[in-house]
Amino acid sequence: MLNLADHIRTIPDFPIPGILFYDITTLLQNPQAFCETIDRLAGEITSFGKINYIAAPEARGFIFGAPLAYKLGVGLIPIRKPGKLPFKTVSKSYELEYGTNTIQINSDAVKTGDRVLLLDDLLATGGTIEACRQLVTELGGEVVGAAFVMELRSLNGRERIKNPNVKSLLALN
Amino acid sequence: MLNLADHIRTIPDFPIPGILFYDITTLLQNPQAFCETIDRLAGEITSFGKINYIAAPEARGFIFGAPLAYKLGVGLIPIRKPGKLPFKTVSKSYELEYGTNTIQINSDAVKTGDRVLLLDDLLATGGTIEACRQLVTELGGEVVGAAFVMELRSLNGRERIKNPNVKSLLALN
Repeated sequence: MLNLADHIRTIPDFPIPGILFYDITTLLQNPQAFCETIDRLAGEITSFGKINYIAAPEARGFIFGAPLAYKLGVGLIPIRKPGKLPFKTVSKSYELEYGTNTIQINSDAVKTGDRVLLLDDLLATGGTIEACRQLVTELGGEVVGAAFVMELRSLNGRERIKNPNVKSLLALN
Repeated sequence: MLNLADHIRTIPDFPIPGILFYDITTLLQNPQAFCETIDRLAGEITSFGKINYIAAPEARGFIFGAPLAYKLGVGLIPIRKPGKLPFKTVSKSYELEYGTNTIQINSDAVKTGDRVLLLDDLLATGGTIEACRQLVTELGGEVVGAAFVMELRSLNGRERIKNPNVKSLLALN
C-alpha cells in the first residue's frame, strides 16, 4: 500500500497567504497512486451500505467522484458553482475557509429515498460538504456518508457535517 | 449498445440566447449510460497506441477524463482556469464559441516524449482542445489524439485541431 502523502505536493501561501495548499496534481500524474486512491475510497465506504449516487462538488470532487462512480456502477451528481447547471437548480450559500461560496444541484438529481454518498478531495472546515449534504437532503435524498482523500483534522470539519459517517484516506495537519 | 443521445438533455438558449446546450447530467445520473460512455471512449482510442497521460480541461473534462484514466491505468493531467493550479504553470488564451478563455497546465505535468490523449465532453469550435494541444506540445509531450463524448459537426472543430486523430461517440448538429 502506497503512502499517499508521498504523492501530494504542499504549496505554502496558496491561494492566499497563510494557507498551506495540498496539491493533488502530483498524485494524479502517478497512475498507481491515482488508481489506489480510487480503490481505497471504494473500500472505505463499504460500511455505508448500498449507494445509488455519488454527489461531488466541482472541480476536484469530479476527479475522484467520477472514477469512483464508474468503479461502483452508480450515477454521478455534479454539484456546481452558479451558472453552470442549465436545468432547474436548488442553491445553497455557505462560508469557506477563506471567503464565501454558493453551490447548486439539479432539482431533479435525486428522488426521495435515493442513497447518496458525498465525495470531495479535501475535508477542511466542512462548509462545502455540509452545503452539499443540505442540498441532497432538501431534494429528499438520504445521505449515507461522506468520503475524502484528505482531511485537515485541526479544522474539525467532521463536527460541521451533520452525518456521523465520514471517512478520509489521509489525515493532515 | 445504448443510444447515448437518449440520455442527453437539450436546453435552448443556455448559457446565452441562440445556443442549444447539451446537458450531460442526465447521462451521468444513469449508471449504465455513464459506464458505457467511459468504456466506449476506451474502445475508440485503442488505435492511438500507447498512452501515458490523459489531459482534460476543467470541469466537465474531468468527469470523463478521470474515469478513463482510472480504467486505462494512466495518469491524469488537469488543465484548469487561471488561479486554480498552485504550482508553476504555462498559460494559453483562445477564443470560445461565445467569449474568450484562458487555460493553464502545470509546467511539470509532461516530460519530453510522454504520449498524451486530450479528452473533453464536447467538441464545438475546437478552441479549448486546440489550446490544450498547444500546452502539452509546448511542454514536450506528444499528443496522440483527442476524444470527445459529443461533437457538433456543423462547427468544424476537427479542422481547428492540429492533429488528425479525433474521435467522438456522438455526432450532433
